[in-house]
Amino acid sequence: MRAVQCSFCGTAAFYRREYEGVSLCQKCFKRSIEDKVRVTISEHKMFGPRDHIAVAVSGGKDSLSLLSILSKLKTKFPLSKLTAITIDEGIQGYGDEAISLAKAMAESLNIEHRIFSFRELFQVTLDEIVKRQTKLAPCSYCGVLRRRALEKAARTIGAGKIASGHNLDDEVQTALLNILHGGVERLARTGPVLVDPEQRFIPRVKPLCGLYEREIALYGYLTGIEFQRIPCPHRNRALRNDVRDVLNALEEKHPGLKHTAYSSKLKLGDLLGDRKIRLNSCKICGEWTGRDLCEVCKILVQNQKLECLTREA
Amino acid sequence: MRAVQCSFCGTAAFYRREYEGVSLCQKCFKRSIEDKVRVTISEHKMFGPRDHIAVAVSGGKDSLSLLSILSKLKTKFPLSKLTAITIDEGIQGYGDEAISLAKAMAESLNIEHRIFSFRELFQVTLDEIVKRQTKLAPCSYCGVLRRRALEKAARTIGAGKIASGHNLDDEVQTALLNILHGGVERLARTGPVLVDPEQRFIPRVKPLCGLYEREIALYGYLTGIEFQRIPCPHRNRALRNDVRDVLNALEEKHPGLKHTAYSSKLKLGDLLGDRKIRLNSCKICGEWTGRDLCEVCKILVQNQKLECLTREA
Repeated sequence: MRAVQCSFCGTAAFYRREYEGVSLCQKCFKRSIEDKVRVTISEHKMFGPRDHIAVAVSGGKDSLSLLSILSKLKTKFPLSKLTAITIDEGIQGYGDEAISLAKAMAESLNIEHRIFSFRELFQVTLDEIVKRQTKLAPCSYCGVLRRRALEKAARTIGAGKIASGHNLDDEVQTALLNILHGGVERLARTGPVLVDPEQRFIPRVKPLCGLYEREIALYGYLTGIEFQRIPCPHRNRALRNDVRDVLNALEEKHPGLKHTAYSSKLKLGDLLGDRKIRLNSCKICGEWTGRDLCEVCKILVQNQKLECLTREA
Repeated sequence: MRAVQCSFCGTAAFYRREYEGVSLCQKCFKRSIEDKVRVTISEHKMFGPRDHIAVAVSGGKDSLSLLSILSKLKTKFPLSKLTAITIDEGIQGYGDEAISLAKAMAESLNIEHRIFSFRELFQVTLDEIVKRQTKLAPCSYCGVLRRRALEKAARTIGAGKIASGHNLDDEVQTALLNILHGGVERLARTGPVLVDPEQRFIPRVKPLCGLYEREIALYGYLTGIEFQRIPCPHRNRALRNDVRDVLNALEEKHPGLKHTAYSSKLKLGDLLGDRKIRLNSCKICGEWTGRDLCEVCKILVQNQKLECLTREA
């Protein structure tokens, strides 16, 4: 019996990429992942040669792989700049490991690393918020605050772009959740590149949006990236987990289905995207919002109210 | 232990409708199904009091239940008219039973029943087409020809509406397939009511679009509807079956999810629906089409070519 050969270099293959019908050796696999990121960046015109990019690094496999790959690609763009940003949400027994992994990776790549905390930016931690506010899932509060925190962080360091490690699975899951769980208008606001034509927000890009989650995990393993393996203690995403399982099962039987689904999502986003949203200044913080108060201030105001009630009780 | 009571009349319940949090006795279940159809019809303004409605009756549980329910609702609209239409696609060992079930049901309801065949309308049967043409799945050819056959049948009998038995599961599966498998632009053309503003096509309505497939099956069972149980021999819808399983599993864990998904689909359809499609006359049959040849003539032309090739060989 002959071993399966790498479709590119002919040495022994270790991985079968079913959706492309190719077999890959470790070296060609790693290169293919980096190539795919390069193609995604170029296809969506994510970066210019002089960009200062704030890379959101949580300490998970996706964001650490992103930082590592961008740092390799940067060698061809000497006038560009990368800064790793880690948001410390204030999650006991979870945040510290994530931060030290992010810090170690940035150091090893010789990239400046900055930490911004919910405590410092919003005077409250995520643990405190989810102890008081239970109307929504913890991830909903965290998502709103993290987005704002990254925006503030990028402005503080003078970055012109924010890059995050969202992968193909994340994007397809979110799209499907928006459909299965309501919220289709969000499809227009979750593309690989989010640019505000009126420049009120710093552009956000997702260079890993074409990569399967499991291939990033494999890439991380092969390149020796140390990433956080324990899940966030607040994580409770019943429907998202089900949607993940469902998509994985469908992909298994119909290789490439996640890619087709992602193309559909992008097409829908384009078709829906023409409708401009009028934004006002939030009456509390002055940030742009579709309502009177922005989502961040709504959370913080509610938190203050509940804090006062607890004190009075 | 006390038996569970019907949430409406207090007698013994036999069915739990999880997504509404109610238990139902047989009588209230049947009434609730008929009520839901009535509400769907009125919500989407499907019919006027003097409509002549062509009801597409295949012989399956959905279309037979539709005919039965519409016939009950008709008693309140004495000026309206129902005609049952069965399309004989020419499928050996399958069509005959379907036709006789449709015929028996129409007779028992005192509704005129008309049969139109692919042979008569297109000079070819589905069996002949799928024997020669294998590029697409049989359902793709059948779908295109059935749509045209229904349109021709409705015009022939002078009907002003075509009603079909598509249920909630069908609609959500199709929407999800359009997303997972490509074809999102079709989301705009698959609502509960399809009206051509330029009146080139007879309006199509789906009065069962708010009903779960399994509840229609239960309704059919309780009301003694004899429906066709053997599946079509050409049926081979691998991905649709997987999508069906997936949606059923998700609905089981998250009751009501299919309804939310359907609302999303309708919202997307509305958002996408503004874009008007320019149509021309098909160069062969003169029917409206977005291209030079309509889909029906493309199939028929290809069929003739293949038939000639077979003869020459």
